[in-house]
Amino acid sequence: ANAIFSSLGTTIFETMSRLAQAHGAVNLGQGFPEGLEPADVVARAAEALVAGPNQYPSMMGTPDLRQAIARHERRFYGTELDPMAEVMVTSGATEALADCLFGLIEPGDEVVLIEPLYDSYLPIIRRAGGIPKLVRVEPPHWDLPRETLAAAFSPRTKLMILNTPMNPSGKVWSRDEMAFVAGLLERFDAYCVCDEVYEHLVYDGRRHLPLMTLPGMRERCLKIGSAGKIFSLTGWKVGWVVAAPDLLAPLAKVHQYLTFATPPNLQSAVAWGLDKEDSYYDGLAAMLAERRDRLAEGLRGVGFEVMAAGGSYFLTADFRPLGFAGDDDDFCRHITEKAGVAAIPISTFYQGGDVDHFARFCFAKTESAIDEAVMRLRRYF
Amino acid sequence: ANAIFSSLGTTIFETMSRLAQAHGAVNLGQGFPEGLEPADVVARAAEALVAGPNQYPSMMGTPDLRQAIARHERRFYGTELDPMAEVMVTSGATEALADCLFGLIEPGDEVVLIEPLYDSYLPIIRRAGGIPKLVRVEPPHWDLPRETLAAAFSPRTKLMILNTPMNPSGKVWSRDEMAFVAGLLERFDAYCVCDEVYEHLVYDGRRHLPLMTLPGMRERCLKIGSAGKIFSLTGWKVGWVVAAPDLLAPLAKVHQYLTFATPPNLQSAVAWGLDKEDSYYDGLAAMLAERRDRLAEGLRGVGFEVMAAGGSYFLTADFRPLGFAGDDDDFCRHITEKAGVAAIPISTFYQGGDVDHFARFCFAKTESAIDEAVMRLRRYF
Ligand SMILES: CSCCC(=O)C(=O)O
Ligand SMILES: CSCCC(=O)C(=O)O
Repeated sequence: ANAIFSSLGTTIFETMSRLAQAHGAVNLGQGFPEGLEPADVVARAAEALVAGPNQYPSMMGTPDLRQAIARHERRFYGTELDPMAEVMVTSGATEALADCLFGLIEPGDEVVLIEPLYDSYLPIIRRAGGIPKLVRVEPPHWDLPRETLAAAFSPRTKLMILNTPMNPSGKVWSRDEMAFVAGLLERFDAYCVCDEVYEHLVYDGRRHLPLMTLPGMRERCLKIGSAGKIFSLTGWKVGWVVAAPDLLAPLAKVHQYLTFATPPNLQSAVAWGLDKEDSYYDGLAAMLAERRDRLAEGLRGVGFEVMAAGGSYFLTADFRPLGFAGDDDDFCRHITEKAGVAAIPISTFYQGGDVDHFARFCFAKTESAIDEAVMRLRRYF
Repeated sequence: ANAIFSSLGTTIFETMSRLAQAHGAVNLGQGFPEGLEPADVVARAAEALVAGPNQYPSMMGTPDLRQAIARHERRFYGTELDPMAEVMVTSGATEALADCLFGLIEPGDEVVLIEPLYDSYLPIIRRAGGIPKLVRVEPPHWDLPRETLAAAFSPRTKLMILNTPMNPSGKVWSRDEMAFVAGLLERFDAYCVCDEVYEHLVYDGRRHLPLMTLPGMRERCLKIGSAGKIFSLTGWKVGWVVAAPDLLAPLAKVHQYLTFATPPNLQSAVAWGLDKEDSYYDGLAAMLAERRDRLAEGLRGVGFEVMAAGGSYFLTADFRPLGFAGDDDDFCRHITEKAGVAAIPISTFYQGGDVDHFARFCFAKTESAIDEAVMRLRRYF
């Protein structure tokens, strides 16, 4: 078997979900929402299933969804896209990432990554023959070390991955930080895979800023979106990537041989949903901000020190004040098994290092799940 | 961009479907069925969508589908599988293939392939660093050149891909040919990726024989299946791979980073559908055999010489008797544009060579589509 993959474990998200299930734990580990699915979008998908067609749609996505994605990018960010040449639908954002990495990386190319990072990035980069160059941001403030980032770029840099809002940190990159990144991309003639799946989950009156909208970035950025995150339907596995035609073309070749296409009924429901009024998008962010605050307050009540999170589904909490003896892996397993609340150890988002006393809690859950989790933790500690 | 992909064209199936649409042609090109979707399976999927859950299922597939796949393998082939350790659901058979190839191939490994071959094999093998070793079977009889096949194996052979029933040839490999392959796999200690997506589309009283069921093959074979083909729902993109635990483990690592999971409502409908009575499976094959015969007769009436096809959706037809001046690429474009019937040139399934006067016609279409196509061809020639 291939050494890159056979040395890997099962993804931490699945592992913790299984553990949560085995112990009847409230699952604040894996990042999926509860109780937020829009019934009208689901009903559309069911109707489209019964009405058909149920055969292969176009490999680039159904025209209606590609057009809806283009409208979405114009409406929220002012980006003008040719829906037929600059939009590709994928079987989830995970596939979109794999398409970008396999499509762009030549063996020996360097790829700049910011830790903490999503766990699919490194194995796919390595399998594509890329050489990762890691730069870390760390709690409590997740500040960007600009000198270190600049030093990670070289003439061999093919691309960078930028994830904003960021998982697991909840960091929403500032315009200033992004301008700094844009400068590096221009200086080193590199691309950026913009993992912006949490684009609508930005709180406290801020707005998501796609790197693609910065000057000079339209031709350098591949922006990844996720219907799973926008409509709280992570099981649908509908994602997309938008990019200039020349950048998208090699990705389409990968996509046609990785999955080829995505279920047409789900695509048509997502197309319909993307045109929802602002109140839908604002309401989603408002509800999630409330849940974030509810969980943050609860965790603080238990004794955690909770980091600020401007976006995403996630709160990072320092558990040292609780007096637990062990690292974050131990802690997360321990509270899943003993307190009945599952979380994700932050150290799994880093390759080594000493960020080993933080747990990630997902707040995209029902209020009663959040309250139950807090109650269990309070009772336990 | 990566050279392996940027040098590729758009897959022939999509290209011809687009051309068919542009010219209002009856599409006998891309292999997808028409008018065979089981309404009860579709209704189940719609109900499951509305009932939920719509969040990430287990990355290996929902337990009900994994169990149903294990029952399916026992019922039809007598293969006993541990549904939790030997079955993985994928987002279509195309993803299953990519999982196998990225999961097993180390750079420098040799991979034995039989031409004509499905167009995703070579790019993924190359991207995985594998070295393809091609052996060809050719019309009219598609006989296996045993000496040539044996000579393609070496101590560096990691795996072979075997496709039976075979696309585009319709060849159903004989037990004797498969025993020969099994001997080579044992002799060279190699694996076999068994692309058996047309397993239920075998005609004339024959039965599908999985290579995995031959002596010694249980630990060497990865068998790929497709709900798209079994239920005539190619747009659902639900596939799977079954293999011994040690073989499946590295594939699961790839899968978790290529797509991670597959929509749960589609999985539960497929799980239900797989337990359908024999009459469903037999009826499907009987209906398709009828359509095959209807199309074969029609094409012969037009003047084509039509090859025998024991399985799959496809007929291969020699167009030389029609007196067309041009190769198969020209021919397929020509009849799409001029006669209003799309087909696929057989030469695209080969890397070079002189098999350039055959067209592939898909017969998994409605009787009226078949009749209309034949009428148009007759009128044109
Ligand atoms: C594909 S499972 C992981 C879900 C997720 O994005 C997370 O929990 O970080
Ligand atoms: C994924 S589109 C190709 C469908 C097919 O299997 C074929 O036409 O051969």
